[in-house]
Amino acid sequence: MQAKRILGIDPGSRITGFGLVSSVDRTKAPTWITSGHWSLKQEEMGERLSQLYFSVHHFITEFKPTEIAIERVFVHKNAQSALKLGQARGVAIAAAVAHQLPIYEYAPKQIKQAVVGSGNGMKAQVQHMVKFLLRLTENPQADEADALAIAICHLHSHQPWGIP
Amino acid sequence: MQAKRILGIDPGSRITGFGLVSSVDRTKAPTWITSGHWSLKQEEMGERLSQLYFSVHHFITEFKPTEIAIERVFVHKNAQSALKLGQARGVAIAAAVAHQLPIYEYAPKQIKQAVVGSGNGMKAQVQHMVKFLLRLTENPQADEADALAIAICHLHSHQPWGIP
Repeated sequence: MQAKRILGIDPGSRITGFGLVSSVDRTKAPTWITSGHWSLKQEEMGERLSQLYFSVHHFITEFKPTEIAIERVFVHKNAQSALKLGQARGVAIAAAVAHQLPIYEYAPKQIKQAVVGSGNGMKAQVQHMVKFLLRLTENPQADEADALAIAICHLHSHQPWGIP
Repeated sequence: MQAKRILGIDPGSRITGFGLVSSVDRTKAPTWITSGHWSLKQEEMGERLSQLYFSVHHFITEFKPTEIAIERVFVHKNAQSALKLGQARGVAIAAAVAHQLPIYEYAPKQIKQAVVGSGNGMKAQVQHMVKFLLRLTENPQADEADALAIAICHLHSHQPWGIP
């Protein structure tokens, strides 16, 4: 049986976390392959979106994930930040779609539940548990930890995508 | 001198208008090549975004625009619809970015100014003027007319992109 390679993505208009884990089956602990975050420094949102597109595209080309997992987003209080987040999310999704990879999405509560056992866990708990579950030597950066948590959540549950 | 082929895009999470016009230089009237709208019928937003990505991608492959023009978006009252619009916008931008096409964007008022001479024109005026300027035989559909108006606006002005 071929191992799944799950790419978790936590998109943002400034920082996008990514984490790649693999798993042969559900009974085995997942294996960390690589993770990090893309920090989009350009002033222009257009250039940031372009950089994000190519970052995801090149990552997929190099690391060949078999599935993508992404956080479901609910209403934001601020419409302008919702628009920016939507654009970043659309760009990341498009890069995955261009590679014809299946995309799965999970609610924030599901993701926290999968890694800290409660839907109301704090950021630091997520970082700590991701480090523990993947046997990392140090705490991952916050967005990187979220991306890894999304990938772990996907390995536990399995749900076709239904982006709101 | 090679003719510019401008693809105007008016992205939406349900309907995305497109319009391709060409122009040899600013002194000549632009020539209509093709236009229409993609109506995304799937229930799942993920499938709609995927369809939109491939619609833009295949259009670019077939019609080979040299530049893309898109409407700048300002704050929406509703954060949820801003997120949806942002995603559709991000997907359309990513498809253009994947083809390494330059993207330009214009404020709604600039676009109206370019086709009806006032920043406060009505939808029907835009449709009427687009039909007149491009010598079409009938009024284009509303989103299609907006996309053509964006392309015409780009031919009049010229501004590097700065997506907010």
